[in-house]
Amino acid sequence: MLRWLTAGESHGPELIAMLEGLPAGVPVRIEEIQGDLARRKLGYGRGARMKFEQDELTLSGGVRHGFSMGSPVALRIGNTEWPKWVDVMSPEPVDPAVLSGGRGAPLTRPRPGHADLVGMQKYGFDEARPVLERASARETAARVALGAIAKSFLRELGVETVAHTLSIGPVRVPEGSPLPVPGDVAALDADPLRCFDPATSALMVAEVDAAHKEGDTLGGVVEVLAYGVPVGLGSHVQWDRKLDGRLAQALMSIQAIKGVEIGDGFETTRRRGSQAHDELVVDDGLIERTSDKAGGTEGGMSTGTVLRVRAGMKPIATVPHALRSIDVSTGEAAPAHHQRSDVSAVPAAGVVAEAMVALVLADAVLEKFGGDSLAETKRNLDAYVAAIPAT
Amino acid sequence: MLRWLTAGESHGPELIAMLEGLPAGVPVRIEEIQGDLARRKLGYGRGARMKFEQDELTLSGGVRHGFSMGSPVALRIGNTEWPKWVDVMSPEPVDPAVLSGGRGAPLTRPRPGHADLVGMQKYGFDEARPVLERASARETAARVALGAIAKSFLRELGVETVAHTLSIGPVRVPEGSPLPVPGDVAALDADPLRCFDPATSALMVAEVDAAHKEGDTLGGVVEVLAYGVPVGLGSHVQWDRKLDGRLAQALMSIQAIKGVEIGDGFETTRRRGSQAHDELVVDDGLIERTSDKAGGTEGGMSTGTVLRVRAGMKPIATVPHALRSIDVSTGEAAPAHHQRSDVSAVPAAGVVAEAMVALVLADAVLEKFGGDSLAETKRNLDAYVAAIPAT
Amino acid sequence: MLRWLTAGESHGPELIAMLEGLPAGVPVRIEEIQGDLARRKLGYGRGARMKFEQDELTLSGGVRHGFSMGSPVALRIGNTEWPKWVDVMSPEPVDPAVLSGGRGAPLTRPRPGHADLVGMQKYGFDEARPVLERASARETAARVALGAIAKSFLRELGVETVAHTLSIGPVRVPEGSPLPVPGDVAALDADPLRCFDPATSALMVAEVDAAHKEGDTLGGVVEVLAYGVPVGLGSHVQWDRKLDGRLAQALMSIQAIKGVEIGDGFETTRRRGSQAHDELVVDDGLIERTSDKAGGTEGGMSTGTVLRVRAGMKPIATVPHALRSIDVSTGEAAPAHHQRSDVSAVPAAGVVAEAMVALVLADAVLEKFGGDSLAETKRNLDAYVAAIPAT
Amino acid sequence: MLRWLTAGESHGPELIAMLEGLPAGVPVRIEEIQGDLARRKLGYGRGARMKFEQDELTLSGGVRHGFSMGSPVALRIGNTEWPKWVDVMSPEPVDPAVLSGGRGAPLTRPRPGHADLVGMQKYGFDEARPVLERASARETAARVALGAIAKSFLRELGVETVAHTLSIGPVRVPEGSPLPVPGDVAALDADPLRCFDPATSALMVAEVDAAHKEGDTLGGVVEVLAYGVPVGLGSHVQWDRKLDGRLAQALMSIQAIKGVEIGDGFETTRRRGSQAHDELVVDDGLIERTSDKAGGTEGGMSTGTVLRVRAGMKPIATVPHALRSIDVSTGEAAPAHHQRSDVSAVPAAGVVAEAMVALVLADAVLEKFGGDSLAETKRNLDAYVAAIPAT
Repeated sequence: MLRWLTAGESHGPELIAMLEGLPAGVPVRIEEIQGDLARRKLGYGRGARMKFEQDELTLSGGVRHGFSMGSPVALRIGNTEWPKWVDVMSPEPVDPAVLSGGRGAPLTRPRPGHADLVGMQKYGFDEARPVLERASARETAARVALGAIAKSFLRELGVETVAHTLSIGPVRVPEGSPLPVPGDVAALDADPLRCFDPATSALMVAEVDAAHKEGDTLGGVVEVLAYGVPVGLGSHVQWDRKLDGRLAQALMSIQAIKGVEIGDGFETTRRRGSQAHDELVVDDGLIERTSDKAGGTEGGMSTGTVLRVRAGMKPIATVPHALRSIDVSTGEAAPAHHQRSDVSAVPAAGVVAEAMVALVLADAVLEKFGGDSLAETKRNLDAYVAAIPAT
Repeated sequence: MLRWLTAGESHGPELIAMLEGLPAGVPVRIEEIQGDLARRKLGYGRGARMKFEQDELTLSGGVRHGFSMGSPVALRIGNTEWPKWVDVMSPEPVDPAVLSGGRGAPLTRPRPGHADLVGMQKYGFDEARPVLERASARETAARVALGAIAKSFLRELGVETVAHTLSIGPVRVPEGSPLPVPGDVAALDADPLRCFDPATSALMVAEVDAAHKEGDTLGGVVEVLAYGVPVGLGSHVQWDRKLDGRLAQALMSIQAIKGVEIGDGFETTRRRGSQAHDELVVDDGLIERTSDKAGGTEGGMSTGTVLRVRAGMKPIATVPHALRSIDVSTGEAAPAHHQRSDVSAVPAAGVVAEAMVALVLADAVLEKFGGDSLAETKRNLDAYVAAIPAT
Repeated sequence: MLRWLTAGESHGPELIAMLEGLPAGVPVRIEEIQGDLARRKLGYGRGARMKFEQDELTLSGGVRHGFSMGSPVALRIGNTEWPKWVDVMSPEPVDPAVLSGGRGAPLTRPRPGHADLVGMQKYGFDEARPVLERASARETAARVALGAIAKSFLRELGVETVAHTLSIGPVRVPEGSPLPVPGDVAALDADPLRCFDPATSALMVAEVDAAHKEGDTLGGVVEVLAYGVPVGLGSHVQWDRKLDGRLAQALMSIQAIKGVEIGDGFETTRRRGSQAHDELVVDDGLIERTSDKAGGTEGGMSTGTVLRVRAGMKPIATVPHALRSIDVSTGEAAPAHHQRSDVSAVPAAGVVAEAMVALVLADAVLEKFGGDSLAETKRNLDAYVAAIPAT
Repeated sequence: MLRWLTAGESHGPELIAMLEGLPAGVPVRIEEIQGDLARRKLGYGRGARMKFEQDELTLSGGVRHGFSMGSPVALRIGNTEWPKWVDVMSPEPVDPAVLSGGRGAPLTRPRPGHADLVGMQKYGFDEARPVLERASARETAARVALGAIAKSFLRELGVETVAHTLSIGPVRVPEGSPLPVPGDVAALDADPLRCFDPATSALMVAEVDAAHKEGDTLGGVVEVLAYGVPVGLGSHVQWDRKLDGRLAQALMSIQAIKGVEIGDGFETTRRRGSQAHDELVVDDGLIERTSDKAGGTEGGMSTGTVLRVRAGMKPIATVPHALRSIDVSTGEAAPAHHQRSDVSAVPAAGVVAEAMVALVLADAVLEKFGGDSLAETKRNLDAYVAAIPAT
């Protein structure tokens, strides 16, 4: 069982992330985690804040001399802006006088499309600060850091993940476009939208420019692929053991995600049964599937073909021309607070989605293969694969 | 914390379902559960098996004189076909001779789109029987039975759920059609496809007929609505507490579901930010949202508006003209086993999806409000709602 | 991950037990489960009810032809007294008139030492029936049935459990007495108190007779031993992964248990450090421990030596001369309800404790070694053991 | 649901602790946490290391202006000795040359009674460093810090905990001695052994001196009391919901604990049933219990009387005259590594046990009463208590 939890507020001193249950002997390299944290900031259409959000990474526990020890991995991601927020976000009581204005002023005009109003009502706050600090997408940095460790574990077992952008607003990669493979990640990272189709990428840039000019924001769809996943992760035997269900929860839990698909997803619902499934054939003595419409899961289990899942992200809710809201301190209509100004965060969502997929797969690997050291998990996995009849 | 597990095989003696954590004092009526089990068999395009699948319901524990006792609710759903399957599915060893043919013959031609092949490889079986018996959609009867109890609990708290069919294959209810409300359930159940739009329903019937004539099958999309959900179920504070993520897992865990949406889902990804969110206004002193594009969740919490989630079902994988497969006992190409012949199970999927949504909501209610008796949970909920400022 | 839940009331139609997560291929034999259910009724000092409690066992799911299928194992244990209780415990509403007297009369005089009063207050009942029906030790039959399956799984992996009675009231097996081994189980079952020391057993019989004559009841201490446990189950890395903690919860959760010890337990607290630990020596090239004071765990992990845990049971709370109580319907003092009349249930508690230890160990085995079939789990375990350096 | 996890190594840069699920509005004061961290170092018989172990406390998330925000509380406890350990415990790879001697030398002589050898075998290490760093009792500082927050939450609800030392080695507080109440905590902290009976405390001091002179170590027994616990925490309905079982796991999970008792525990096993239970009487119109032998739980639920649990600690395993061990790098007999030299850590264990009890109770409170803010939880609790009939 792998557990992962994050803590920390957007403008607090630091984010904390914990990964519990990782075997010993997994390579954990700070520069690799920092690499993924940097990838999370990629993407045409990001605003100024991404530059402020310096990610100072510290490994607090669970790693020694570059390898995991089996004990919980804990890390923290410092906030270089913290000096500006010491009073506003101080864990210790502060003189109310220092909070009377500027950053310290109560946020009483909740933003539509955010957790602001609901969180205030649920937790009994009279302003949105304590809610939005935690609901912010800044939290996903902690997920990405843990995902980088999960990816390292998976890589040692022959599993590699790739995320790419399928659509930005209405601009979408054409059906039937080739899928990126692990070797394409550098090229994806170099693309302004992390889109694998150059022509579509150019159209996406234009779409971002147009939205920016009109003071608006954009959503989109990302896809995560996992290569080398062994057959049989997850299980059909109980609703909460199904791999597709666990992936769906993990992806839907990402800020601003409103839809999840496995394989061809909703497109499949429009096909006839004779056209909707991956047939089985024997090829050179091996069982093969003729296609991957299912996205690599059947019956809630990985099939051994490429895993393919998608997440649909709504446009950023803080639009430059603020949406209508109310001021809860007066009960009067008022424009919503305005907090940031990216046009789109879709490419970053791909990196976050990749991290979540990696965490779910790492958990499923440990569930099936056990192991307290990388060598033990790998030995168990290899023996299992070797024992499966070719046909 | 509410836990629910099911057990039992499709052709075994019975299904078992357990619901653990339900407060005392919740009305649990056998006829209500049976009613939902019957609704699960509705739908134009179901084959003969639905008539065989008699659902003999027994409450084994947790209920006395029509009300829950706080102890785990357990029930079983008998299989009236069991006498025909006694040897094939006997829990006790049987003479191999009696298994040599007919129902007892090994299933060595796994069906594409099913758990068959993957399950055999994962669990080390040389035939698919032990896998397909559990992976079968028959299992959803147990979920529906538990869902009926969850619905009874929610109803006492003022929450009601409605499921309806949005699309069958390419035939879809027009955008902007009115949503059914709880009072419309009888009408929905009377519709051949459980579709709320009569004109679309007629087109769906035609589509089913056409697919049937061509020896093919159909998928579709269902939507579940929940009215009266209090604000603040789920939480933004941790990835696995988010209500939308939990709903997504529950829905994706249903057999044949390949996509999940909250609110407008993927449609939202194509909108500009200025058009994608539900603005806040003051109406007669109360905070209102101008729309429900978000589907009733923000920041992973229920907003208090109608909850709206969708699940996309692939077409039934056992098509009358069997798909290509292999015979694992010979390694040769062979048509897949053929097991059932519904054209579409989408209306039933709506009933199952409604059950899963009810279970997730009941769990989230108990997480937020606690309570060991219905009276206690209700008292806590009412006091919370009363304490929320109107604006 | 192995999950186990039970349901059902003492006088309801049946108990239900579910074991979720068991690999495929584990032998599951009805007669073996029935054997353990019968062992649960052993013991000098049991009253008449044990004879009534016929255990009609049905396997509802998860087992085919004598072996588990990887799907959840569910079983039910019928209550042959059910016809007498149909009205009192009916899940459906009954005419109040039929409940006015005899078995149907409200139980308003809660028994000290039982869940009665607390359960009524927690769940909002005005009588104890709904509480005591579930709190009753009858529920442990379901645990024993699941434990029998866990034991079968462990046995295939070379792990065997033995339970025996250490003390009855003040009569205790002398320090330093030899421990029973798996081959001694038949002899233990034949002893009236399941005590391995014949002289002590005779004293225990006398103690039971004396208590019976005086209209009183007795408690005692049982010990469970597990032979062949591989080194490294559980973990030191997190509080809730420690094997000793998990064993302690499982044992303390048994009805009437008030104390738990690992190894020498509280006796160890009185020793000096130089006398309290198991030293390490090399014997013929192998690392050995000079003793087993620790009971087979160090740092929350199994050491590979015999696991040894103890549970202390209070005397049965329903004493023949009823304890003082109050009648909650009048607020007046009144003797407590009287429900059963065993002098002691300690030998049975040993069988229950053995079942709980087996379930915890089976869970810990799956956590470390994974595996979806017995063959896979065993292969992983064997490879791990083979890879441990001899010294 | 309250979750708590810790991370970090004994000589690593810092410990990390996370408490997830705490409602908003709970007072969280750094000085209070530091106070409990200081209490954890109390106790006659502690060696020099306690002075080195400076606890630099930082709140990383979940707290603002002195109150919890509903988001996960995360904190870290810095290790002021870290500069000496930078190379040995560096998360990043280091030049092997710097590790060749002194602190960096491999620990190949595992200490009996510690996790050392088992951990090496389980995780595949050739030395004990990665194991003992996490298995060390230093980890309990993180638990105590989280426990201080749980105690603050409970205090707001009227629940207060007290821990005291019952025995050191063979020296034990006489039966029938008065129990300390919350107002006695300062006096307990001032006592060299945190013993409430001055005469016994003096004997304990003598025992520690004697053991110290003889180069030996001591264990003992601590008791935790909780006053003001509402009736009905935990439940009888399922094995893993029982409060006593959850307390047993939490206490047994503490380093060096080998026995747990609820109330009179094993003493109860030696009593007759007529003398072993707490009778119910009506006193001035209220139901009262005549005693508290049960320790405040019946049927796995809190009874509303004082909760009383005990933990038995073995003597410190690192005795000054090192125990026999083997050198795993040579296979030869060798004395065990020697790492620290307290005579006894029993008083500290009481503080740790108090923290664990507080965490378990806080979790059980949230399970029963729910609530996302302190006000909501308190309102629910108060309404429940008010609704319980006096008789």
